Amino acid sequence: MMSTQTVRLLIACPDGRGIIAAAAGFLAEHGGNIVNADQHTDPAHGSFFMRVEIEVDGFTLDRTTFATAWEPLATRYDMRWHVEWGDRRKRMAVLVSRETHCLNDILWRWKSGEIDVDLAFVAGNHRDAESEVTSFGVDYHYLPVSAETKPEQEAELLRLIGAAEVDFVVLARYMQVLSPSFVAQFPQRIINIHHSFLPAFAGSKPYHQAFERGVKIIGATSHYVTDDLDDGPIIAQATLEVDHRDTVEDLVRKGRDLERVVLARAVRLHVQDKILVSNNKTVVFE
Amino acid sequence: MMSTQTVRLLIACPDGRGIIAAAAGFLAEHGGNIVNADQHTDPAHGSFFMRVEIEVDGFTLDRTTFATAWEPLATRYDMRWHVEWGDRRKRMAVLVSRETHCLNDILWRWKSGEIDVDLAFVAGNHRDAESEVTSFGVDYHYLPVSAETKPEQEAELLRLIGAAEVDFVVLARYMQVLSPSFVAQFPQRIINIHHSFLPAFAGSKPYHQAFERGVKIIGATSHYVTDDLDDGPIIAQATLEVDHRDTVEDLVRKGRDLERVVLARAVRLHVQDKILVSNNKTVVFE
Amino acid sequence: MMSTQTVRLLIACPDGRGIIAAAAGFLAEHGGNIVNADQHTDPAHGSFFMRVEIEVDGFTLDRTTFATAWEPLATRYDMRWHVEWGDRRKRMAVLVSRETHCLNDILWRWKSGEIDVDLAFVAGNHRDAESEVTSFGVDYHYLPVSAETKPEQEAELLRLIGAAEVDFVVLARYMQVLSPSFVAQFPQRIINIHHSFLPAFAGSKPYHQAFERGVKIIGATSHYVTDDLDDGPIIAQATLEVDHRDTVEDLVRKGRDLERVVLARAVRLHVQDKILVSNNKTVVFE
Amino acid sequence: MMSTQTVRLLIACPDGRGIIAAAAGFLAEHGGNIVNADQHTDPAHGSFFMRVEIEVDGFTLDRTTFATAWEPLATRYDMRWHVEWGDRRKRMAVLVSRETHCLNDILWRWKSGEIDVDLAFVAGNHRDAESEVTSFGVDYHYLPVSAETKPEQEAELLRLIGAAEVDFVVLARYMQVLSPSFVAQFPQRIINIHHSFLPAFAGSKPYHQAFERGVKIIGATSHYVTDDLDDGPIIAQATLEVDHRDTVEDLVRKGRDLERVVLARAVRLHVQDKILVSNNKTVVFE
Repeated sequence: MMSTQTVRLLIACPDGRGIIAAAAGFLAEHGGNIVNADQHTDPAHGSFFMRVEIEVDGFTLDRTTFATAWEPLATRYDMRWHVEWGDRRKRMAVLVSRETHCLNDILWRWKSGEIDVDLAFVAGNHRDAESEVTSFGVDYHYLPVSAETKPEQEAELLRLIGAAEVDFVVLARYMQVLSPSFVAQFPQRIINIHHSFLPAFAGSKPYHQAFERGVKIIGATSHYVTDDLDDGPIIAQATLEVDHRDTVEDLVRKGRDLERVVLARAVRLHVQDKILVSNNKTVVFE
Repeated sequence: MMSTQTVRLLIACPDGRGIIAAAAGFLAEHGGNIVNADQHTDPAHGSFFMRVEIEVDGFTLDRTTFATAWEPLATRYDMRWHVEWGDRRKRMAVLVSRETHCLNDILWRWKSGEIDVDLAFVAGNHRDAESEVTSFGVDYHYLPVSAETKPEQEAELLRLIGAAEVDFVVLARYMQVLSPSFVAQFPQRIINIHHSFLPAFAGSKPYHQAFERGVKIIGATSHYVTDDLDDGPIIAQATLEVDHRDTVEDLVRKGRDLERVVLARAVRLHVQDKILVSNNKTVVFE
Repeated sequence: MMSTQTVRLLIACPDGRGIIAAAAGFLAEHGGNIVNADQHTDPAHGSFFMRVEIEVDGFTLDRTTFATAWEPLATRYDMRWHVEWGDRRKRMAVLVSRETHCLNDILWRWKSGEIDVDLAFVAGNHRDAESEVTSFGVDYHYLPVSAETKPEQEAELLRLIGAAEVDFVVLARYMQVLSPSFVAQFPQRIINIHHSFLPAFAGSKPYHQAFERGVKIIGATSHYVTDDLDDGPIIAQATLEVDHRDTVEDLVRKGRDLERVVLARAVRLHVQDKILVSNNKTVVFE
Repeated sequence: MMSTQTVRLLIACPDGRGIIAAAAGFLAEHGGNIVNADQHTDPAHGSFFMRVEIEVDGFTLDRTTFATAWEPLATRYDMRWHVEWGDRRKRMAVLVSRETHCLNDILWRWKSGEIDVDLAFVAGNHRDAESEVTSFGVDYHYLPVSAETKPEQEAELLRLIGAAEVDFVVLARYMQVLSPSFVAQFPQRIINIHHSFLPAFAGSKPYHQAFERGVKIIGATSHYVTDDLDDGPIIAQATLEVDHRDTVEDLVRKGRDLERVVLARAVRLHVQDKILVSNNKTVVFE
């Protein structure tokens, strides 16, 4: 699989002349064969973004030598940059509450190899999902939470994440708001699924809100979690048509089909290092 | 065409036993052959809705005799009801500002017979659309407007509407807010197109709002105009995917393809008497 | 749930005057409160279709008395008709081969109650799905098959179906062609998912065919199985956009998201008795 | 506008190491600032594709000097390549028969500047579209055709195309099959819209075919015209849902909304030099 054989270089910097040529030249100089290159210029903010995938085979730089060699060029163009070496799978944890449709979907995709990660564990504030998770041979941590116990619960979660060397966290319909201090430790590393086409119907019970408003489409949105509830950078969205015959329960049911697909898409993009964030928006190199 | 050959009966009432049988029985008794029947029960509000299309041929009731015959049944079930006799085309006026994509689309559909109405006139607060309209052989009224002249402008518009016996008004990207007193005279008879998937991005410059938020889908919404701006009953919506490469101008361009189709769909449904409104939501019998 | 509380009456007959009134009158006469009524006239074939859902509560006819009471009316209008009494869940069997995405999806929907059936068993010509099925507490029958053993294998399958009183069979990516004699025993009771937007790419390896042709959309189709391979009445279809970057493997992966949803939709419609078949086409009363 | 300010370089060659770096280096060396770069590797055929957009400002090569400078690199990598200098608008001719929805749509988009081309003329084998075309201030050539007069008609068409220096031809529902000798003169320069989701329902009356088959989605396909009818490289497709209530006439009507958008999208992509063809498939750099 690609994921273990290519190096991914992600770059964001002010737009300017010659960046592509400079980067491509640098990589060629060090034996790096580019197998995929995407770039994007945002004229509104004068920003430039690039993602390059390089064959490991023949590339003369590695984890220890890359930064030094690359730094002059990064400095010249004032780059934020990041390399993923692709020599290990990312490690994922999943949080869940009672609803398991997204969880089941992720478990199947993980088991089948469609999402190419190590699944460290699943944790939830209810026991509903436990048997489903363990039937996949995955650890389930039951972490009940109340307003009073939230600090302890999050501390325990942090401990589990640390112990399991988790790279990113997926909220598969986890119906708790994570504290700012928790979120701050995982910038662009917590992926949530919200069950509406944000920014419409942020907050709780979006399908009820949609029903009340009488919309003719419903949607789902995956986004990185930030301190502003439901306001993080949007990774993926999808919508489908509904009509007056649909009850709230129908919206919930139909919405599940969106949520599964939209969350899986976001997770997959994250795993493949295809997402860059800038100005609370995402550049997604699909 | 159907539109001149069938009678349409629309009913809204509290839900109850035997309404369909009573209505169907009544119609059969008077020689009315049902060629189309739709009904909907809204359990959330305990409401019942029905639309029946009846062949004129054989139907022994007419414009003068129907109400008296029907009234007992209407009273029994506490019905709001309405009959369209289908013996004349509805008369439509279109308001426009500078952007003509929706207008051109409506003109083509009207000319080709796809929208089966009489087009009374087009009016606009700019001259941009004038030649386009007159090239279709349609009257164009230039009605400039400012904050000060708005009362006079709307009065003139009302006069034109009255003189031309207009049944309903289409706002084909008319960028003026109609006054409450104007709106009040045309309940469920003014159709607007808003260039976002409402309730997201209500108000002005929705594509700019969408760009700023970084959504991955954009949309368009047709709705009946009420006093609450962009908050009237939604008739139709559509969405399409966008991505980080799309500038505001791209959103505007792509959005036009949605706006045309969504507005045309709403107009067509209205013309065919397929829309019932209740609790600020629509029942659309497609 | 609705499914155990309403009687569903399905009717197909030549179009004619007064059918709706006659049917509605009959039901009212016997205390049947209509909670849902759909009808459709196909002018191309002069056919009329109706589906009526009636509250059990108050209905004075039952399984033993309905036919006699209804027969005169059925004869008068030359109806094919069918009643589902809704007093027991339908019983479903699922056949599978190696790919389990549709199977897993159905199992989850069944377990969660979204698909309101009894799941009699799953059978497959490979062992790949076995542990997944049994982890849901469902029986799995391993029925390997070759060209030579096909008659025996189908005989065994028939025996299992008979013993478990199965009402309908779902082919959840079952990659074997069922024999005409098998199919003949389950008219409109075997639901297949084909991984293309039929009639394009019928037969084997549709994603490879799609890749070779360079289409920009792929699709999935659920249909009732008939003797003509991939040519039975279509129940539901869905499509999604692809582009030149998608390899065959990408099409396969993206297609799975369509297949799951399209098959589940067909199964749900079948379970709710919302499908009528005529001229190898379906009338789907959603 | 971009279209007059950037040079577009399109490349297709066997895949190999260092192509991006070599091309980017070459351009940088000659002062060319890359404002857009897309590349695609097709592992199935071992092919590499690239499209680069370069600012004219600062680029030291031009129409007369580019080829000589570029040739060594092109030879080394065995490239097919093509440069568009962006110093003049492409010139378009449109062919039409009786149906004008696509034509009207193109005329509006051209007039509004959305499609950035010179519209040389419209020609048709009927007079239906004439007044619509001339009302836009565009020349209309009436070129009736029969089996016998086809060679003369196509000769006249060729003469008009030559005289008007037309770059590419759009078949906006032109219901005549162009002869192989005509087609041969415009490889990848004739764009057709077919009213089905090809390869389903190739040939005539696709909506009738779709109705007969009972599909639940219909589609439209834009493609380059080749000798094999409806079998040229697909540029864009779109689909929408239909159901049993839709008559053939409804499919035709709904399909028009697809045809307009899909054809316009293909024309736009062609005008922006965003399409590469290989193995009868398109690489579309959107």
